[in-house]
Order: sequence, then structure tokens, then C-alpha cells
Amino acid sequence: MGGDFAPANIISGGINALKESNNRFQIIFVGKEESILEIINKLPHENLDYQIVNASEVIEMQDSPTAALKQKKDSSITVGLQLVKDKKADAFISAGNTGAVMSASTIILGRIEGVSRPTIGTFFPTEKGKCLLLDAGANVDSKPQHLLEFAMMGSIFTSYILGYQNPTVGLLNIGEESSKGNEIALETYKLLKESSLNFIGNIEGRDILKGKANIVVCDGFVGNILLKFAESILSLMKFKFKNYASQSFFKKLWVGLIYGTLKSVLKDIDYQEHGGVPLLGVNGVTIIGHGGSTPKAIKNMIFRAEEMVQKDINSHIQSKMKNLK
Amino acid sequence: MGGDFAPANIISGGINALKESNNRFQIIFVGKEESILEIINKLPHENLDYQIVNASEVIEMQDSPTAALKQKKDSSITVGLQLVKDKKADAFISAGNTGAVMSASTIILGRIEGVSRPTIGTFFPTEKGKCLLLDAGANVDSKPQHLLEFAMMGSIFTSYILGYQNPTVGLLNIGEESSKGNEIALETYKLLKESSLNFIGNIEGRDILKGKANIVVCDGFVGNILLKFAESILSLMKFKFKNYASQSFFKKLWVGLIYGTLKSVLKDIDYQEHGGVPLLGVNGVTIIGHGGSTPKAIKNMIFRAEEMVQKDINSHIQSKMKNLK
Repeated sequence: MGGDFAPANIISGGINALKESNNRFQIIFVGKEESILEIINKLPHENLDYQIVNASEVIEMQDSPTAALKQKKDSSITVGLQLVKDKKADAFISAGNTGAVMSASTIILGRIEGVSRPTIGTFFPTEKGKCLLLDAGANVDSKPQHLLEFAMMGSIFTSYILGYQNPTVGLLNIGEESSKGNEIALETYKLLKESSLNFIGNIEGRDILKGKANIVVCDGFVGNILLKFAESILSLMKFKFKNYASQSFFKKLWVGLIYGTLKSVLKDIDYQEHGGVPLLGVNGVTIIGHGGSTPKAIKNMIFRAEEMVQKDINSHIQSKMKNLK
Repeated sequence: MGGDFAPANIISGGINALKESNNRFQIIFVGKEESILEIINKLPHENLDYQIVNASEVIEMQDSPTAALKQKKDSSITVGLQLVKDKKADAFISAGNTGAVMSASTIILGRIEGVSRPTIGTFFPTEKGKCLLLDAGANVDSKPQHLLEFAMMGSIFTSYILGYQNPTVGLLNIGEESSKGNEIALETYKLLKESSLNFIGNIEGRDILKGKANIVVCDGFVGNILLKFAESILSLMKFKFKNYASQSFFKKLWVGLIYGTLKSVLKDIDYQEHGGVPLLGVNGVTIIGHGGSTPKAIKNMIFRAEEMVQKDINSHIQSKMKNLK
């Protein structure tokens, strides 16, 4: 039920995933049964392996996570995560209220042994494929030890899921030298340097899109601001082009002509095109998607979740985290 | 002598400023006399009001500011700022090593009474004209009181120099509610709320380019990362278009055709096109430009400096800062 186009996009994505995978897994649609049935009945859904579990309440995108989780005990988020907790589902996927999904996952599923704080990452397109930046907003006032854990979890995720060999880790900072940065960054530098990670040192804001590191580590305060800033860039560009097009009939025609090229060239800069990101460090698989997730994004999130379950990412995290302590 | 195209671009910019203003002021070129003369002699420079002050050393862009200021006592940065200190010049302009210019300005000129930490801002293009984000990297681990001072100085600058009426101040944060953010942000929120500033509350990363606030306040760690990230966006776009163009002869032709439009539409997103930014809070006028500043950027920096001197920004800062305490 979560997301700007729920439940329609969520269900379409799920149905498509079942079709494309030939029922390789079962999908449990969690939410208001009536609304779900209404959408499913409009779609070709014969011989597909799904079930519906009713949840009477909906946590809205603008709800305060803490308050919503207290007041709406029968929300699709809570009910869905409880299915994972009870081993009735292997993974939970949502395009809903990010804060609520993170909190509920941590509370209901619990943390993996050795993890101080679960973390959510985000993908940035770069000149050398995508990089994973974490933390993207789950944690503020992170301690150096937390940042080390984020880097470790990100490293495991990118090697097993994205197939990066010995992925590089960069510490987001305001200068390259080890003497640069705020207190937390200075201490984190030392921890990362001593760790078994493939730490390449400090990287600056300009290095992210260049693809200097596979994993970019930072506190969630910085990461969240950067993520939201990045998401807003295409809006400013669209605004500029709209202004330009409004100047004359010819310019309008011209912008119409080049718009398709712009869109295809800049496609992977558009965050809406990406699938979801995992919440790493909880005892279970939770994938969180953009509120505006398309059916295609939802489908990709489902495949990502399947992969995380099959490759048993969490047991890799658990064993690495034990060694980290 | 500072900057990627020094002294050529610096001198061209200065000469152009003198011509355009009909010698409304005098320019003192500070640096290696021979190099300066060599450039000047190539340019039409008759009847222009300039002089040259020799400085035998050059602080390079990659030099560590602290070490360079200790070792290179006769650098153009030190000599130029000393001219301001000695009242032989009204303002100092540089496209050189930002850290060195900031440190030297603070050490040589001193701080304005009531200012705990000088701050450097940066302009972001928005859907509603440009906004000033500060701090952009002069200060890390800023305290709430520092952020309040940055906001106050930014407010004075944007009202007197950019002509903004009662400019709005937004606190860069990870959510709109006053309960959001890290410890520093929570405390800063209260200080800003109680101040005489036109504080509109927390703003998120996505609100900057929308133009939600005229002044965006944050710690220099976040501001610097954001600034450098923003500067790198056009590089990624160029990279994408280059890739696209390399796919076929037709695509190459097509990109050539649309490139001019892209450039003109996105012009003010290109940070190289902006002039410099002031270092606010020091006893004197210091304007710092991008290392890659064009002659046009240098010229605009000179006019900006003239305006800051004429409007006596520093005395406005001083009187406001007294009330702030």
C-alpha cells in the first residue's frame, strides 16, 4: 500500500515478476484486500503464484514513522514484516514511507549480531558503473565504528550482488589528505585504514560521479542531503528547458526534437529508473524503493530480493561482523 | 599568481575591468613582476590605472595551506592581503588556493568583532534566482552559534549585494520538521527560530535548486561536499554525451547540433560561469574565485569587490554581530 502509485504499480510489478520468472517464487501482496483484488482483476493473472494477506491500515508517505508505527498496528508495513519474522516470507519489499520501513524492520526483524546500526544505501550513477553510497539517511550522528560497519556491509553487498571484485571503499570528505575533515572523518579514516576493506582513502564530492570508489561511506546526514540534492537536478534541468521552450515557437519545436535524446542519454541519471536499495544489517531481507517506483522498478526490487535471499547476504554480513569486533 | 590559468586570466580580467569602468578604481597586480609584465605587454593597456607589486613566491593549488603560508612568506596571497591590512588596497581578489586565501585572510586581516569564524559561501542556481549556501568549506565541526553567525552574515550580504528584500534563511537538514536532524541541527534550529532572521525552517537537499530559501545554512563539511558534487554534474553529463556521440556518425552529428542549445540552456548551472564568492567575517574584503576562473569571472569579482567596499558590508556585519551576542 506504500508509495505514490500504490497499490497499482506495486501489484503490476509483482505480477510481471511472476510472469517473467515463471512463478520461480510466490508473491504475497499485503494490504487492503479489496483494493488489491480490484487491481489484480484488471490484470491477466491466471496461473500465477500469489496470495493476498489483508492489512487494514496504510502508513502514508507523509506520516511520522514513529507515530504511525504506534498508531497503525495493522499497516501493510507491519504485517508484511511480521510475515518475514514468522518465516512465512523470505523478503519484504516496499515503496512506502522509508522511515517507517526502516524503523519497523529494525524493531520487528531485529539487528544481525554484531551490527550496531542497520544502514540504507543508495546508488549513484558514475562514469564507471554505479556506486553504493551509505548511509543515505537511516543514521545521523554516526560514530566511526558505525561508518566502518556501513563500509563492511556495503562491501559485502556490492561483491555478492553487484559482482564487484574486492570493491573499493572511499570515505566522503572535504579533502584527499588523511588530515582533512571533521573529527568523525579523521577517526573513521584510521579505522578504515586498519580494516581488511579495500580502502582507497578520502574522496571528495566531485569524485562520486567520476566513479572513484565503488562504495562511498558517510554519515546519513550528509548522505541524505546529497541523495535528495542529486534527485532534484533533473527537475532543475527540466525547468530550464521549459523556460527555453517557452521563448518561441521554434525553440519549443527544437526542445521537442532533442528531448528524446536527452532522456535516453541521461536515463541512468534519473533516480526514478533505479530499483530499490536494501536495508543492510537487519535479520531479514528488506528492500526499499522510491515512492514513485514504476512497475518495472518494483519488478527489479523483487528480483533483487530473491538474489539477496539466495546468496544469503545476511549470513555473510554476520560472519564478517563477528570478525570486525 | 593563483589559479589554473594564472597570471594570464587574472590580468586579462583586471585589464578588462579597468577598461569597462573607465579607471573607476586602481588595480594592483601582485605577483612575479616579470610574468605580469609579459602578459600585460601583450594586451592593450595604455591609460589604464594599474600598478604592479612584486611577490617572489607562488602558493600552488595543491599546496597544503598551513605549510605553504609558513614556507612561502613572499607569496602573492600574503603580499596582496598585507596591502589590504596596510590600507594600501581596499580589497583582495584571488583565484588561487582557497584554503590558503581563507587562512591568510583570517590571520592577516583578522576577524570582525563579534565573528567567531569567518565563512565562505557559494552560489547555487535555483528555479528562483541564485541562493547563497554557507558554509561551503571554511569550517567543519561548526557549533550552532557559528551557524547562526553564518546565516546572519549571509543575510547581510544577500540583502546589500544581491538586493534580496528580507532574505529567507533555510537550515539544511534531512527533514522539514523541527525534530529532524543531527544534534547540531536541532540546536541550530532553535537559535535561528529565536533570531531576527527571516528563518523559514528546515529545508532538504531537494529544496536547494527549487529556490526554497535565499540563504542555505549548513556546516562546511556538508556544504563543501555538496558544492564539489554539484560542480561535477556537468562532467558526468558531458561524459554521457561523449559516449552517446561515439556510438555512430549520425549520433555524433546530432550531439554536435544540440550541444549549443544544451550549453545555453544550462549556462547558469555551470559553476565556471559564476564569479567569486566573498569570505565573510574578516576585517577587509576578500573575494575568492574558482581555480578555473575566466577573465570574465575575474572582472566580475573585481566589480563585486568594489560593491562590497562601497556598500561597506563589513560595518553592517559588525553592527549586527554586536546585537547577536
